[in-house]
This record gives sequence, C-alpha cells and structure tokens, in this order.
Amino acid sequence: MNLSRRDFLVSGSAALAGAAPLLAGMTPLSAQTPAPVQPEAGALGYTPVITPNGSTMPWVMKDGVKEFHIIAEPVKREFAPGMVVNCWGYNGQTPGPTIEAVEGDHVRFYVTNKLPEATTIHWHGVLLPNGMDGVSGLTQPHIQPGETFVYEFTLRQHGTQMYHPHSDEMVQMAMGMVGFFIIHPKEPAGPKIDRDFAIFLGEWAIAPGTSTPNPSVMTDFNIFTFNSRAFPGTAPLVVRQNDRTRIRIGNLSMDNHPMHLHGHRFFITGTDGGPIPPSAQIPHATVDVPPGTAADLEFIADNPGDWAFHCHKSHHTMNAMNHDIPNMIGVQQDKVADKIGQMFPMYMAMGNNGMGDMTEMQMSGPPNTLPMMGGDGPYGSLEMGGMFTVLKVRENLASYDDPGWYKAPAGTSARKVDAPPQT
Amino acid sequence: MNLSRRDFLVSGSAALAGAAPLLAGMTPLSAQTPAPVQPEAGALGYTPVITPNGSTMPWVMKDGVKEFHIIAEPVKREFAPGMVVNCWGYNGQTPGPTIEAVEGDHVRFYVTNKLPEATTIHWHGVLLPNGMDGVSGLTQPHIQPGETFVYEFTLRQHGTQMYHPHSDEMVQMAMGMVGFFIIHPKEPAGPKIDRDFAIFLGEWAIAPGTSTPNPSVMTDFNIFTFNSRAFPGTAPLVVRQNDRTRIRIGNLSMDNHPMHLHGHRFFITGTDGGPIPPSAQIPHATVDVPPGTAADLEFIADNPGDWAFHCHKSHHTMNAMNHDIPNMIGVQQDKVADKIGQMFPMYMAMGNNGMGDMTEMQMSGPPNTLPMMGGDGPYGSLEMGGMFTVLKVRENLASYDDPGWYKAPAGTSARKVDAPPQT
Amino acid sequence: MNLSRRDFLVSGSAALAGAAPLLAGMTPLSAQTPAPVQPEAGALGYTPVITPNGSTMPWVMKDGVKEFHIIAEPVKREFAPGMVVNCWGYNGQTPGPTIEAVEGDHVRFYVTNKLPEATTIHWHGVLLPNGMDGVSGLTQPHIQPGETFVYEFTLRQHGTQMYHPHSDEMVQMAMGMVGFFIIHPKEPAGPKIDRDFAIFLGEWAIAPGTSTPNPSVMTDFNIFTFNSRAFPGTAPLVVRQNDRTRIRIGNLSMDNHPMHLHGHRFFITGTDGGPIPPSAQIPHATVDVPPGTAADLEFIADNPGDWAFHCHKSHHTMNAMNHDIPNMIGVQQDKVADKIGQMFPMYMAMGNNGMGDMTEMQMSGPPNTLPMMGGDGPYGSLEMGGMFTVLKVRENLASYDDPGWYKAPAGTSARKVDAPPQT
Repeated sequence: MNLSRRDFLVSGSAALAGAAPLLAGMTPLSAQTPAPVQPEAGALGYTPVITPNGSTMPWVMKDGVKEFHIIAEPVKREFAPGMVVNCWGYNGQTPGPTIEAVEGDHVRFYVTNKLPEATTIHWHGVLLPNGMDGVSGLTQPHIQPGETFVYEFTLRQHGTQMYHPHSDEMVQMAMGMVGFFIIHPKEPAGPKIDRDFAIFLGEWAIAPGTSTPNPSVMTDFNIFTFNSRAFPGTAPLVVRQNDRTRIRIGNLSMDNHPMHLHGHRFFITGTDGGPIPPSAQIPHATVDVPPGTAADLEFIADNPGDWAFHCHKSHHTMNAMNHDIPNMIGVQQDKVADKIGQMFPMYMAMGNNGMGDMTEMQMSGPPNTLPMMGGDGPYGSLEMGGMFTVLKVRENLASYDDPGWYKAPAGTSARKVDAPPQT
Repeated sequence: MNLSRRDFLVSGSAALAGAAPLLAGMTPLSAQTPAPVQPEAGALGYTPVITPNGSTMPWVMKDGVKEFHIIAEPVKREFAPGMVVNCWGYNGQTPGPTIEAVEGDHVRFYVTNKLPEATTIHWHGVLLPNGMDGVSGLTQPHIQPGETFVYEFTLRQHGTQMYHPHSDEMVQMAMGMVGFFIIHPKEPAGPKIDRDFAIFLGEWAIAPGTSTPNPSVMTDFNIFTFNSRAFPGTAPLVVRQNDRTRIRIGNLSMDNHPMHLHGHRFFITGTDGGPIPPSAQIPHATVDVPPGTAADLEFIADNPGDWAFHCHKSHHTMNAMNHDIPNMIGVQQDKVADKIGQMFPMYMAMGNNGMGDMTEMQMSGPPNTLPMMGGDGPYGSLEMGGMFTVLKVRENLASYDDPGWYKAPAGTSARKVDAPPQT
Repeated sequence: MNLSRRDFLVSGSAALAGAAPLLAGMTPLSAQTPAPVQPEAGALGYTPVITPNGSTMPWVMKDGVKEFHIIAEPVKREFAPGMVVNCWGYNGQTPGPTIEAVEGDHVRFYVTNKLPEATTIHWHGVLLPNGMDGVSGLTQPHIQPGETFVYEFTLRQHGTQMYHPHSDEMVQMAMGMVGFFIIHPKEPAGPKIDRDFAIFLGEWAIAPGTSTPNPSVMTDFNIFTFNSRAFPGTAPLVVRQNDRTRIRIGNLSMDNHPMHLHGHRFFITGTDGGPIPPSAQIPHATVDVPPGTAADLEFIADNPGDWAFHCHKSHHTMNAMNHDIPNMIGVQQDKVADKIGQMFPMYMAMGNNGMGDMTEMQMSGPPNTLPMMGGDGPYGSLEMGGMFTVLKVRENLASYDDPGWYKAPAGTSARKVDAPPQT
C-alpha cells in the first residue's frame, strides 16, 4: 500500500461525487436513495465493498493518515417509493457510509454532532486503545450537540467491523445510526473475492400513517429493512456466473435474523471477531445473524438465475403489518366487511382465504405506509416486503447494472399440466 | 440404486398402506394421527427416516424418474387428544409427508392445489435450476386453486432439506404447510446411522376455545409442537442401546428453538446447507435451531433410560397458555377466587404457590383447549406440554414399539431421606 | 486428586465463611449481595471459578464422596441499590452457589425443599444414570415441601454444566432457581486459565413499583441481570494484563442474549456439551448465547483499560423500562407535559430529543424501581442498566480488588477539537 502514503482524495468514484458536499459540512435531508456505489478495484489494492442503496465513505490522506469526517445528524430516508422516514444517521445516510480501510492503516475520524442530544461513536469489534473505544461516561465525555471529537488509531486486524453510538444507544441505534467498518487484509489469504456486498439489517416500529420510528418498542416491530430500504425498494445483488461472492451482514437490531439464499450453498467465513479458519467453516442455506454480530457469507455464484435472498422469519418479509388482527381464515365475512366499510372507509378485513389476495386489492392505505406485501416479478406479485432482495446471477454480463429478469432456458421451469397423473 | 431403474410403487410399508388413497386425489380431513412410519432398510439402500406422528411420502418409478404427487389442502389435525385444529398441509397431513430420495435421483413432483388461494412449492436448500425454485411471481406463476404444476430436477447433493410454499408464505407456513425433503448420500461417508428421526418444530396462535391458527401473530404464540403434535400427544423416540442415532430438526416457525437432550452429548453434523466436516463439528447438550434452518443432531444412544427431549424455552413446553396474566405468587387469594368463580364459572387463579398444583385441578377448560401442562409418567405428572417428548433407550428391545416406562436398576435413582445430614 | 480422598470441609475461603450457616439449614432472606468469592488455587488443583456477586457452594468430604447440601427456598435479592426482589433460589441465593467438582469425583447432593410447592433438581448437561436426572414424574417423584432427596453419581466428563428445577419449571426458573455446575478436567489440556468467571443471564418481568417477578410473561421482560444483579449493581471483572481469561455464560431465560466484549477478540472453547476441539473454535467480538445453553468465552486480556461487557440487545442494557410508550421524538411537548404533570405527579414524558437527558433528571420513580439507565463513570453517565459490567484489565495489579477507573496514557483518548477540518 505505497498508495496510502500519498496525500490525495480517493474513494469509489460514485461515492466521491455524491458525498463530496458532506465534507463541507452540509446536511442533506434528502429523500433520495444514493445510487449504489460500485467502485472498481485498481489502485486501491482490494475489491471495494458494495453497499446496496448506500455508499462508501470518502477520505483524505494527510501525512500518511487516512482521515474521515463523520457527521451524526437527522436524516430523511425513503424506505421504498411511498414512504419517507425521519431517521438519525451519518453524513445524510442510514446506514452511515461504509468505512473501508486496510490492516496497518493509521486512521483518523472527526466526528461532528448535529443531533439534538449527545452522542459518541463506538468502533464495534475494532482492537484499539481504551480511550478510543467511544463508550460515553466510561472512556470519554459525551459529544454534545455542536461539538467535534477526534478519534485515531492504527488498524491491527482485518474483517467486518461496525460503528454505532454508545450514548443513549437504544434510541440512537433504533433511529438508524449504524454503519460498516470494513478492514481489508494487508496480504489476503485464500482466493480473490470478485463481488463483496455489505447489508445492514434493520427493524423499525413506525405506526401506519406516521413517519418517526418508536425506539421504546422492544419486540413488536412492523418494518424490516436491508440498508434501511424495504422490498420492493431494495437494490438487487448483481453478479457474473462463477463470481466468488461475499455478502457481509451486520445486525444492530433487537432480533436474530436468519438469512436465506436460494440456489446456492454458502460458508460462513468471518464474524465481527475476524476470519474463521477453514477447518471451522460450516455450510448453510440459511444462517442466523444475531444482534450485535456480523457474518460473512461466501460462495461461488455458479447457478444462473434470479435467486431470492431474505430473512426467513416470515413476518420480516412483510411491510407495515399489524401483528395482532382478528383471524378471519375460514370465516365468511363479505357482508360484514361491507357494513364496516361504510363506517370506516379504510377498513380492510383479513382475507377469509388467506392474505394472498391483498396484493391485488386497489385500496388506499394510510399516508406514508407501504403495502403489506408486493413487488412485481415477471410472473406476477412476489407477495413479499421488508428484508427481501434478489441475487441476479448471469452467464454473460456486460456490466453490473441491473440486467432485468432472468429467462430460464426451455424445459427448466415448473409448468402447468392439465391434470395430475393417474396412479 | 439399480432398484430405482424399475417402475414400481415403493415406500415405507405403513406409509404405503395409509397414504395410498391420496394418490387417487382424495382429501382426508381426518383428525387421526397416522401411525408412525418405521420403514426397514433392505432394498432401499439407506436407513429410512422415521417421522414421528407422521409418514413418508410414497412414490412411483416412471422411466427412471421418481415421481411424487403432492396435494396442498386443508387438513384437520389432532394436536393431542382433546384438540383438533383447522390446518393447511399436504396429502392430508401437517407436516406434509417426508420426501426421501437419493443423491443422483431424478425426481418429479406433481403439485395440485386444493386450497382456497394460490400457492407454490419452494424446495428449501435444494440446488436446482432457477425455474424450479418455486418463488411465485419471480420464477413461476402462482398455482391457482384447482391447478396442477409439475417440478422436476436431478439431485446433486445430500442432506436435510425442506419444502414449503413461497406464495402468501406467512399465512401458509403458519397454517402448517411445511415438510422435510431428505436426500440420502449416494455413497455414505462415516459410520452407519441406525435410527434416523425427523421432527418439525411448529408454533401456533390458537385462542383458547377456537380451532384455527391466527397467522397474523408474530411473537405471542400459545401452542408449540413437534410434527404438529403437542405433548402429551407426541410419539416417543425409541432406540436400542448404542444405536447411532440422528435427529433431524426442521424449523419454519418465527422463533429460535433451543433443543435439549438429556443424558447424552450430541454433535451437529449437518445443516440445510449439507454435511458439516468433522473438523467443524461441535458438541452440545442443547442446540439452538433458528427459523428457516435444519440441524442434524447425532449421537450414540449409550445411556439406557427415559430421557427428556424438548425445547428449552420454558414457555414452549406448555400448552394453551395466556402469557399475560396477573401475578399471584405470594398473594393469598383463596377468598377472592371463590367470589370471582361465582361470577365466572371457568375462572382459575394463577397459583399463589406457583403453578405446579394446576396439573391436579379437576376443572373444565374452554372447549378444544389442551391443559397448560400435564403428561403422566411413572412417578406422577411431568408438568410439561408443547415441544416435549421422550427418547427411550433400552438394552434389550425386541421391536421398536414403545417399551413403556424405564425401570432404573436398584440404587441408581434419587431417593427420599428422612432428614438432611447434620454438618 | 489425592486431596479428595480425605474428609474435610473445603471451599473458597469467602464462600466457606459466608455460606457455612446454610449447612445448618438456616434460611437467610437477606437483601445483601454476598461479597464476590475469589478463591485461590493451591490445594484444590484447579483455578477456582469466580461467580461475581455470587459464591461457590461449600462441601464436605465423606468416605471419598464430595457431599453438598442444597436448600431450595424463597430468597430476597437486591438487584441493585434501591431494588429488592422476592425470588426463589438455593441456599439463600439466586443464582444458587456455583458447584465445583473434578472429573472422576463421586458427588452426593442432599436437596431440601423449603419452597411452598414441589420441586426437583435436573443436572443439565451432566452424563449420569437415568434415575438421577431429576425430571419430576418421569425419573422420580416430586420433592414435596419439607422433604429431602439425595442424588449421587460419578462425574465422567468436564465442562460448564448447570442445575435447575424440572418441576413447575417455567415458574421456578423465572423466579431465579438456576446455578452453575462446573466440572474441572482431571488432566487439563491446553494452557492454564488464570481467571475463570461464571455469569448467569436472567430476565424478569417485575412491574414498576412491585417486588415479585411474573413467571407468566413470555416475551415482554423489563429487568435484565448478570447473576441476578442489574447494572450499576454488577461487580466488575478484574484481571491482570495478559491473564488467560475465561467467562462462562449460562442462560436459562426465554431469550437469546448476544454477549459483546470490547477491546478483545475471544474464542468459544466450550458449550454445555463440553469442550470444543481447537479446529472448530470460532473467533467473535459478540457471541449469541441461546436459552438452555452455556458458552465458554476465552481470551488473553492483553489490552489494558476499562472494557464494557454486555448483552448487545439495546433494551437489555436498560432497567425497568416500559417498552410500549408513545413516541415523542421530534415532538415539542413541554407545555403538555407540564399539564399532565399537574394531574399525575410521577409522569415523565419520553424526551423529544431522545432519552439521553433522562439520566440527569431528578425525578422520583415508583418505589423499588431502578432508574431506566445510569451508572456513573469517570466521564459522566454511562446511560446503561441491566446486563452490563466492566472488564478491568490492568498492567500492574497488587490484588484483584476493584482498581477504580482506568487512566489512559496521554494521547490515547478521543479528544474534543474546536472545529471539524476544512476539506
């Protein structure tokens, strides 16, 4: 990394362009989702991480120190078209931009507090001097509104770490203040990673018709996100066939989330404690990611197609749901629903035949509230929401732009038949 | 597997007899639990899996293809004597019959939809062509009521996989639509398994006095099951001493369930991603099984006796419980309870000395509701319910039929003494 | 262990002094937390386990048998200054005193029931004859109030096991009846452990202003503890720099708890099923500990400082919180709060700027209720509660007494700067 000895401004090109104003201290309360950053390797010496629906944090080299500026501030975030949420985050974003550095780097973080209350930053999983650990009251004073603190330390490890407040922690993390801190190895072991994604899991309690998360809720969440976006607002993960692919998952929510990938078997190769030795790596189709942890999922994307990638708790692939409604399965309620509907125009009864029909109803919900499930695919509604996206594996791919829907070769799809076989 | 080259109808004998009518398209809404299938190896080339309180799915060989017929339909399921539930399932059962096949098999599934809404089947953890993945909207159209779809693919892995809908998934899985898809290795590595069980974990929200699960409930479940049976309705697991035993656990519920086995140390040898290499296998007395995953527990049953096997969340070994009742421990409430009882004849106060007494009360509960805890053993009430059964390890066992209660040799049991020692 | 062949009373000295009266059958309903036991090795042949805010169970040698006396009884426990809880426990304590023994020992337990209802003891994870397994109804009769039962068996394993009731289990564990059963190896493999801690995770539903846990609560807990103490009532973990340190975690609550250690990377070296082979050990900064399991965290404490050690579910590092209060973030409510306060003097509105301010408010809460968050450190409030303590690593340490707060060397702490850099 001779490179890092020179003073220059570097980052993924998209991040650089999009995030530059932040360095001047602006506070964009934009509802726009930044374009996914897809930096190319080259001069960096590593495969840059892609943060879908997010970005990489720019830095400046100053006398051999990699210098970042982090602004804690309120952020308006569009979770999906039709829903904008009053969050707190970093540099105009939630999750905060992904920090990328290399083992051995000396890093410096200026942290400016533009929130209405005190904060700090804890560098989760990073091995550093005690005074840099960011625990308010224990290792440093609170960073009061308007103040700037500086942290600096040398990186003596590699892996998937995180950053988040350690001051009024419950409220601030529930409002969206989380981010990745990814440290690349100085001398990588094992085969080269071709595509390296980073996804933060989030869960939120946002009452239908409102816009601000309720941090006092402990278990009864109703919105579930990847990088603070809910399906169908989540960007797809696009890879070339046979790309060695890594998906880094971070979780600072209140629940375990079992992440399921279709069509592939993956291994867990790292945690927030660093790389797992090959002898201890375990294959999975679904891996549980507990709160306060990170997991690196690694696999060869050898199976062409559009593959669902989602949390396997079925309520976590739904949007804006009330989890305590009367049960109408098997109940004939058409006439009753009509009568109630005359009194309460927004009333929608739970389906007496299940909920599949709901995606097709043309009803108006409360303002700023996503439909419970939806997402149109090539064959109709996916009936999904929340923590859901699609891994797109393609044989021939000119660029990593979204290639549209997969076309299965003839004879390789489930097909309707006129009648079941006679036996 | 020359065997599989011939066209014939084969399955565990009990399954064959019991399930044959299904092949003709009948829909048995029976409250009866099928007798446990205990197929013997022999011609199959593998140790068949036992699905306690369930069955193995029959198949037909057609020109070298193993052909199954799966009917998605409403099912009435007796959870335990005294409680019948309106579920949805497959081939008259919940969980659906266990699919068994061998690595290298070419399999074909006809799936007929007899539900009141659309469905699909996703083959969880199975490596297959994208068009066969069963994700409604994404990889295929919904299977509408009355329609039949056909899936086919070649098995290129082995392990404990699952099948379930990927269409109105939250509702359909909560109603009971889950099943095992077990792929035996073509050339088994490691020692032969003598007894191979498969147990699906389930949790349900069924208000006392009602019969239909409420799929909108996310956390507040009140009935917990092994293969859709609640203790004391669960079949025991019977093994011979020193049998190499595997218990495959599948979980498509909303909670992690930590499975605890008494008297033995077991290793986790596989997940829904396949076998775990020996170097990465970890010993446990309790292993957490998250939603969307499967776990293979393997051990030598070297310790004779009746050993509890259960979820270690204490509310999950209870039936029909209201988890939000006033706390009366330490409160003298006898007179108050009498007065309330005059007004509400079914009122039962929570015990002021704990809840142990409740198993002995002779009170009438709401209709179609199991007692909170019970299950009589050789020494009185076990005070258990839900996700609980007994592993019966016996030195001399003529058959795998239930051998009754274990008799401990003299001097090997806890005993009452007149008084504690003086020290 | 020639030692164990002689008849004498032995234990950690503090435990011996403090717990001796229990052997005579007294029932101390004390609100005092016993001084942490810090036994020194020497004659025992192993590094004794430290149970912070707890103690080690004394024993008597009788003809080569290690004899313990356990009394199940109501216990008053101070969770932190200002809150005393009506628990159930063992020998006047919750968790019960830690049992320590050595592989090969023959152990005998007299269990006397001084509770108002029946109980038993199950030796969780211990390999023993079926009749000693302690499952009421299945392997033995209930131990009725006033009765004494005796269990005895030879230890043929080592690791972190537990003891708890298997009779009205849900109520009795929720009231605090849990304890460690630690079996040291006869011939230790691997490097010597210098400091060996044992911490039981607990969660409780104790309505503000009341004193008795509600065992019927399944998910909505409001008090979270280490060894039945809530921060700031938890003892710190004091170690010398470069001590090989083990923290054994036991969990018999209803939730997974992800345990996070700052400043160090640790490996999981054992479960309730025993030691994990080195090839399968995985590094972590946070490890999820599910209910019904134990985990051994092992690391070299090479990083001097005061390091937070806590559950990473943010609601679990809070005290006495209502998880379902109106969300006031961003709402100007000062005038409304004044008006409500005139009617309900104890009313406190959730902060419109977050909850950080709350630690500084001088308001009187309900009696016997801990502040939601607090704990003063050298730089102000930690804004923590519940499952939180501090690992204190020191270069020079004359004794393992609490050394006070860490002083970071000059230049190694986060510092305030006048303004962010211009870029």
